[in-house]
Amino acid sequence: MAVGLSGLPTLYPVSGVRLGTTQAAIRKKDRRDLVVVEIAPGATTAGVFTRNRFCAAPVLIARESLAEMPPRALLINTGCANAGTGAPGLADARACCAALAERIGGAPAEILPFSTGVIGERLPVERVIAGLPACLEALSEEGWSEAAHGIMTTDTVPKGASRRVTIAGRTVTVTGIAKGAGMIRPDMATMLAFVATDAEVSPTVVKACIAAAADQSFNRITIDGDTSTNDACVLIATGRSGARIHDLGGEEGRLLLQTVTEVCIELAQKIIRDGEGATKFMTIEVMGGATDADCLEVAYTIGHSPLVKTAFFASDPNWGRILAAVGRASITRLDVAKIAIWLNDVCVVRNGGLAADYTEARGAAAMRAEEITIRVELGLGQESARIWTCDFSHDYVRINAEYRT
Amino acid sequence: MAVGLSGLPTLYPVSGVRLGTTQAAIRKKDRRDLVVVEIAPGATTAGVFTRNRFCAAPVLIARESLAEMPPRALLINTGCANAGTGAPGLADARACCAALAERIGGAPAEILPFSTGVIGERLPVERVIAGLPACLEALSEEGWSEAAHGIMTTDTVPKGASRRVTIAGRTVTVTGIAKGAGMIRPDMATMLAFVATDAEVSPTVVKACIAAAADQSFNRITIDGDTSTNDACVLIATGRSGARIHDLGGEEGRLLLQTVTEVCIELAQKIIRDGEGATKFMTIEVMGGATDADCLEVAYTIGHSPLVKTAFFASDPNWGRILAAVGRASITRLDVAKIAIWLNDVCVVRNGGLAADYTEARGAAAMRAEEITIRVELGLGQESARIWTCDFSHDYVRINAEYRT
Repeated sequence: MAVGLSGLPTLYPVSGVRLGTTQAAIRKKDRRDLVVVEIAPGATTAGVFTRNRFCAAPVLIARESLAEMPPRALLINTGCANAGTGAPGLADARACCAALAERIGGAPAEILPFSTGVIGERLPVERVIAGLPACLEALSEEGWSEAAHGIMTTDTVPKGASRRVTIAGRTVTVTGIAKGAGMIRPDMATMLAFVATDAEVSPTVVKACIAAAADQSFNRITIDGDTSTNDACVLIATGRSGARIHDLGGEEGRLLLQTVTEVCIELAQKIIRDGEGATKFMTIEVMGGATDADCLEVAYTIGHSPLVKTAFFASDPNWGRILAAVGRASITRLDVAKIAIWLNDVCVVRNGGLAADYTEARGAAAMRAEEITIRVELGLGQESARIWTCDFSHDYVRINAEYRT
Repeated sequence: MAVGLSGLPTLYPVSGVRLGTTQAAIRKKDRRDLVVVEIAPGATTAGVFTRNRFCAAPVLIARESLAEMPPRALLINTGCANAGTGAPGLADARACCAALAERIGGAPAEILPFSTGVIGERLPVERVIAGLPACLEALSEEGWSEAAHGIMTTDTVPKGASRRVTIAGRTVTVTGIAKGAGMIRPDMATMLAFVATDAEVSPTVVKACIAAAADQSFNRITIDGDTSTNDACVLIATGRSGARIHDLGGEEGRLLLQTVTEVCIELAQKIIRDGEGATKFMTIEVMGGATDADCLEVAYTIGHSPLVKTAFFASDPNWGRILAAVGRASITRLDVAKIAIWLNDVCVVRNGGLAADYTEARGAAAMRAEEITIRVELGLGQESARIWTCDFSHDYVRINAEYRT
């Protein structure tokens, strides 16, 4: 189903990061479901996490451990979210971290746990621990592709992105993987994304870098408006390229931030392209707003409307639904008479009413494409915002009705 | 598909209100699609309307005319919403009002127009006008049932509710009809509800009465979170019962308000029971909140979650999705450790985690019912709120993908 996605692109290895994946039968047999990401000493790592207040046990622990000391490894499982599991869930996650720490010779707080899958079920700790030797044995700098498979849930394709740029005369690599598919309206990061670079940056800079990049990528996508309990996005900077970056303000820092952001946007878009049941990839651009927040609110109101999403599924240029969504957005000011709406380059609404040169045939032609940009001009100011989303199909309902069966 | 709904209940006539319905072929042939509601002189009438800023031409006119003079008639069509139609749409609605005013001998501003159907298409004025004689000929105090049919769009059953109570020694009747089905998250009223009583009340009281009743009924339902451009709810008080009510504060006023509210709640619930594709009727109760607004926000976050709605469609007690929705609600304060969640009388979550006595079998048994109450206890205060919603099925997508075909 994934819109415009085939396999993984080339994922360049990042010196200082090794990944090992195995089949641990956490929920289902015969699928990769456990990943260890080993981080070489001296790296800096930062993460952004869900703002859902029912955040999962691994999120609580990863956030806490990250504040204590630099991580030596990430331990990621799919098939069980270990969310809504209370104190036992915390103990389960800690037991897994301790087991891995013992095997690689470190403190439990040097292991960051990540889980994705069904909410409310206990983590099968023994199966996770039993899978660790195979993960460690498989550790390799070439392990990105396997790991991209190993973090999938209802994703139909693995997701990765990779860039090489020259910074301070050195080749710097940025490589990331992500999983998504449902319960996607990230509020800090998305459902598990792991990005690494061999640039050398301070802990403060790595934190600022992932926060800024996530804000322009994972925080700009929605499938169903449901912010997950387990969202997490991690950036690891190993420093192995020798390109040292002191801050994000200078030219080199800006280039690094831009590259990390590009990788994050590619991953975020891939999550949308592979949204549950998705048949269309929609970019929603809102311009001319009084504030950035107003633009985002209008964009998300359109992007969350089940009526808009089902119309796009049907390739029906039912623009009245877009207009109704704009009209109900909670923004401070809206001048209906100034609004214009485009589907790709077809102007549908001008001055708040049907554009004179619009024809149903032109609208229908625009809607037939797999990738469509909805552009809304508010005519009130200079701000703008852009988000990405997908349509709402029969298969979204089927996938989510059958999710636990 | 309508959950627990069969035909119309007995709809008692309201002295002073006559209704006439016809087939005007506005969008499709062979269906009732045009209704005139004639109001006897001396009645007081008030309405509440959508807050969608792209409100339809008939909403703009009805709101304006209501402020000018008491209406003599309502003119209601289905098949075309006359929304997003700009100045021509206003002229179309005015032309229809003028034609009816001429026939019954009144001013155009004494006719309130209401439209429902597809957004963005022009109203076929000639067909509306051509249908007026048949409507006028059909006018009857017994016309409620026909009119309930005449305002349907994707509704699968007509919706009406009626009560008789004794107030001030007189029998007072309250009768109403409504239509709903999709684009339902009313923000002042719902997609067309018409309620009449023969109580005698002042213009101020009738206004206060419908505002308060709508707030506890139509403003407490959601199907898809999409506030319509055409929502309107009207209360007519003809005074013919001889029961005069001076204010809503006294015993008699409270009884009238309670009766009108009961009729509105019954209509609102019927809209949900007949929600597009609905197979379950869900009541969401949030108690123990710090504020009423917090309770409503939590309730709507659950009620709008596509993941919660598809789980209910599947009768899957996937309570983690409810918990995740509570966790992402935009409320000022949430103490995860205090939260409890019930499905009917089955406690699923206690102290923020799985309840010790919960079993999947008990959850599954609760979910099999067609009518389910989700109760969330926040443990933070004394406020509470209740809304009604429905599940999200294959048919919701089918209906909305095929809507204009």
